[in-house]
Amino acid sequence: MRIAVLGTGEVGRRLAGKLASLGHQVTLGSRTADNAEAKQWAADNGGAHGTFADAAAAGDLVVNATGGLVSMAVLEAAGADSLRGKVLVDVSNALDFSAGFPPGVVTPDGGSLAEQLQKAFPETRVVKTLNTMNNTVMVDPGRVPGHHNVFVSGDDAGAKAEVSAILESFGWAPDRIIDLGDLSSARATELLMPLWLRLYGVLGPVDFNISVVTGPPAE
Amino acid sequence: MRIAVLGTGEVGRRLAGKLASLGHQVTLGSRTADNAEAKQWAADNGGAHGTFADAAAAGDLVVNATGGLVSMAVLEAAGADSLRGKVLVDVSNALDFSAGFPPGVVTPDGGSLAEQLQKAFPETRVVKTLNTMNNTVMVDPGRVPGHHNVFVSGDDAGAKAEVSAILESFGWAPDRIIDLGDLSSARATELLMPLWLRLYGVLGPVDFNISVVTGPPAE
Repeated sequence: MRIAVLGTGEVGRRLAGKLASLGHQVTLGSRTADNAEAKQWAADNGGAHGTFADAAAAGDLVVNATGGLVSMAVLEAAGADSLRGKVLVDVSNALDFSAGFPPGVVTPDGGSLAEQLQKAFPETRVVKTLNTMNNTVMVDPGRVPGHHNVFVSGDDAGAKAEVSAILESFGWAPDRIIDLGDLSSARATELLMPLWLRLYGVLGPVDFNISVVTGPPAE
Repeated sequence: MRIAVLGTGEVGRRLAGKLASLGHQVTLGSRTADNAEAKQWAADNGGAHGTFADAAAAGDLVVNATGGLVSMAVLEAAGADSLRGKVLVDVSNALDFSAGFPPGVVTPDGGSLAEQLQKAFPETRVVKTLNTMNNTVMVDPGRVPGHHNVFVSGDDAGAKAEVSAILESFGWAPDRIIDLGDLSSARATELLMPLWLRLYGVLGPVDFNISVVTGPPAE
């Protein structure tokens, strides 16, 4: 599949590298066409690179791996025409560090960033996923032993199935993928990042993830 | 220990019942002195009941098991004099259902309800805990099999130790109790409730909880 990954930070490069290693034709998109990190990534991974617009035009599926506070501007730069009809995998978190630590989570109109992006690009099929964990775990869930989960939110069942297939190719067994429902459920996972940051503070630099553990029917 | 539990809803009665069964002298506090549910609870559990002020005066430790949107008013009714110097175990969540489902989480001044309560009652030692799970699991973690966690947040180490001892008496092994840090970390757990509600929607009426699963040191 031809996939655009928008964002050349650690998350974008990690996802793009994994997707390329799985045989996809990946274009890494950045603000400028001559981004040195993107060029290096393309050389190292047998992928392409270009502007956000170049990448979005080249991909049949688009991954938003930019910081949540700039995601809207990035998608506008990518262009509605290039996003139309495509699945947009949104892995971003809108954290506001302007007042220091802990950051606030920006919740546009009391909702989620994912819903805001969906509203701005109504003909794109937004799926929120992977935003609740470190990028190393995103593409290699076996780094964390035992049972743990990834969440999926979106309004389009077909798009969620397509994204779940990609998650499975990353190593997420189907029973580890929890479909939380429509895109408004992205509010729940976007609000998990403050806990992730606190746990990172407590646990230190280890890979970790959240597991949902269920028991028998409640009283 | 003499313990006041403020709030006669399901959470308050469940916690009060467990504490009474462990031998504590529990007073269940409600808005009025003649609350029928509180009277019934006291008769069934060998405890006492009374107004919020009666209960707070009678307890050496106070549990806030009221709805987060009314907790400030309840503690004002309980009275700063009766709360002074005591540990306040805050298990509440400030969910706003006024716009329907999913509810919004009220974050006073961009922070947490727990911090707001701490600020209003500076001589009380607020510890946030247990607010991330169903009340059945709070007092009987064995209902959910395997490894899962409870979080503790607070500015006073002694108060957190006292609360952790109570959690252990409920069945929480020490390694299941994660101290997230100072009371500002309550922001992280208060923002977990939207995920809890979505999971409840997906999983149905089963007992469940969140587990933090760790792997080896990160790259």
